[in-house]
Amino acid sequence: MCESKTIWWDGGLWLIDQTILPGELMPLCMKSVRQLIEAIKSLRVRGAPALGAAGAYGVALAADLSGASNALEMMAELENAADMIKASRPTAINLSWGVDRAMRAAALQETAEDIRKAALCEAEEIAEEDIRINKLLGKYGARLLDDCDNVLTHCNAGRLACVGWGTALGVIRSAVAAGKQIHVYACETRPLHQGSRLTAWELSQDEIPVTLICDSMSGSLMRKGKIDKVIVGADRITRDAVFNKIGTYSHAVLARYHKIPFYVAAPLSTFDRMHEEGDIVVEERDAEEICTLAGTRLAPRGIDVYNPAFDATPLELVSGLITEKGVFRPPLMPPI
Amino acid sequence: MCESKTIWWDGGLWLIDQTILPGELMPLCMKSVRQLIEAIKSLRVRGAPALGAAGAYGVALAADLSGASNALEMMAELENAADMIKASRPTAINLSWGVDRAMRAAALQETAEDIRKAALCEAEEIAEEDIRINKLLGKYGARLLDDCDNVLTHCNAGRLACVGWGTALGVIRSAVAAGKQIHVYACETRPLHQGSRLTAWELSQDEIPVTLICDSMSGSLMRKGKIDKVIVGADRITRDAVFNKIGTYSHAVLARYHKIPFYVAAPLSTFDRMHEEGDIVVEERDAEEICTLAGTRLAPRGIDVYNPAFDATPLELVSGLITEKGVFRPPLMPPI
Repeated sequence: MCESKTIWWDGGLWLIDQTILPGELMPLCMKSVRQLIEAIKSLRVRGAPALGAAGAYGVALAADLSGASNALEMMAELENAADMIKASRPTAINLSWGVDRAMRAAALQETAEDIRKAALCEAEEIAEEDIRINKLLGKYGARLLDDCDNVLTHCNAGRLACVGWGTALGVIRSAVAAGKQIHVYACETRPLHQGSRLTAWELSQDEIPVTLICDSMSGSLMRKGKIDKVIVGADRITRDAVFNKIGTYSHAVLARYHKIPFYVAAPLSTFDRMHEEGDIVVEERDAEEICTLAGTRLAPRGIDVYNPAFDATPLELVSGLITEKGVFRPPLMPPI
Repeated sequence: MCESKTIWWDGGLWLIDQTILPGELMPLCMKSVRQLIEAIKSLRVRGAPALGAAGAYGVALAADLSGASNALEMMAELENAADMIKASRPTAINLSWGVDRAMRAAALQETAEDIRKAALCEAEEIAEEDIRINKLLGKYGARLLDDCDNVLTHCNAGRLACVGWGTALGVIRSAVAAGKQIHVYACETRPLHQGSRLTAWELSQDEIPVTLICDSMSGSLMRKGKIDKVIVGADRITRDAVFNKIGTYSHAVLARYHKIPFYVAAPLSTFDRMHEEGDIVVEERDAEEICTLAGTRLAPRGIDVYNPAFDATPLELVSGLITEKGVFRPPLMPPI
């Protein structure tokens, strides 16, 4: 299976531009923190675990580009960069988690040069940890899948959403690596098509059988008995709900109605035990994402549009939270 | 409100090309039965009631273009045309209903010229009936809507799906005409965007407040209490199920889960009392409808795709069937 990374450091910060997949696999070098923030906002890099690494690497990038000659000056610059990076996509918790980890490592240092090294070292550690954690989470999750299962997934919680391997798709990869035959139904995931552009591409690269469907088809397939399990990733898991790509909640209700297990695969860094659903502001994105596609107009001009990036699925609809500490059936939660 | 027609006869058969809306409002003249069949297959004309009229007008067109000099020769030609038209979109029952009505009227005639007149006369009758029936159906349905309701609809069951007025949108138009404030959530309806291209356009033309959403957002909106009722049209209603645009079933289950009424608005010509769900073959459409849009590739080449045009919603999920004979709560059905 493909082991390449979606974000990495090689004399500078590099990432795969996910907006132009599956047409092109193009690495981009981030020349500034501003460019990284644009890449995060426009989803060139996306997916909760990948954003964790992007946040930490963003601090390392700010340090690398800084001309500060002492620790105090450097930390003031980094605080500023950290705030801007965290604000670029507020709903996904991993972004601020990654930024904070790199900032804590930086804050322990006494010289500007040590801060540079420490921030980069922490970002590299997060990136390596991410793959390790996903493989562990994948191993636990794979036990939930049976040979010949048909698994529905939404959006992309694959290696493109992480540094490598993936969360929801990591579970599927681990099951396949363990010798199980798994067939995936990938929901295209409107409006930005992460399912058709990224998940279908990733799985076909790995020769895991995949059938692409529109998001609205999941209910009908469940009714026909064509779906055995649903697995999705998460952008934030509060004490009471899973925030994930818009559409996840509908699949969860449909799964419950049809008595199909609904699993969420996410590392502990996605858990937010400080908050409840009502505390979280869901990012609303530009109307044009729904009204146009590659210059083609799909709706009349000036129409009202509602375009939230995420929805919240209450934990009572979740059959299991698949983490690197094992699988937890709500209201059970993984230990901190 | 706009009263123009989507299909009409004016020295020949004309229809609005619905594939290029909302960009352009372009009438097309059908020069042959083959061209009409292409227009039906490619959804230039679509929607169950409009297809009823298209079927009957198709027979009139075949008669108009025929050089047959006697009734026997003419009827042989028409039989052939009728079979081809009926086969062009087999799931929508109204198409064959319209063809059959025009054929029955033709079969009673004794000369080629009388057949021409009778087929056209029957098609014109169906077209006029359609608007009358929709307004009647709209009047019954409007009583189910309360002032300030937020109504979710899927696909386009508006005047573009009919000769005029509309079924699901006809109910909304009638409620608005009766002085109620109604706000509509229009699901974009992947893959062909009849919701964003047609429903959002129709409603904004009539200045009825509408918010466009992706199909996957309905569950989340219901959970937030933003949807009071769901109304959709139908392509065929068998003894046990409503066949309608793919995605309808998911909205129906979500409505049931959230205790929201789910209504189906359709004329009696959409009812198929001879069949059950299992008897009906659902049309599967080309994979490219999901994989590309206006030349832009949304999925890797060669990927497996499942693209049914319709799904089946069992009648037990339907709160009411809105017809020109009144509203019927299943298992009650309208009298024949």
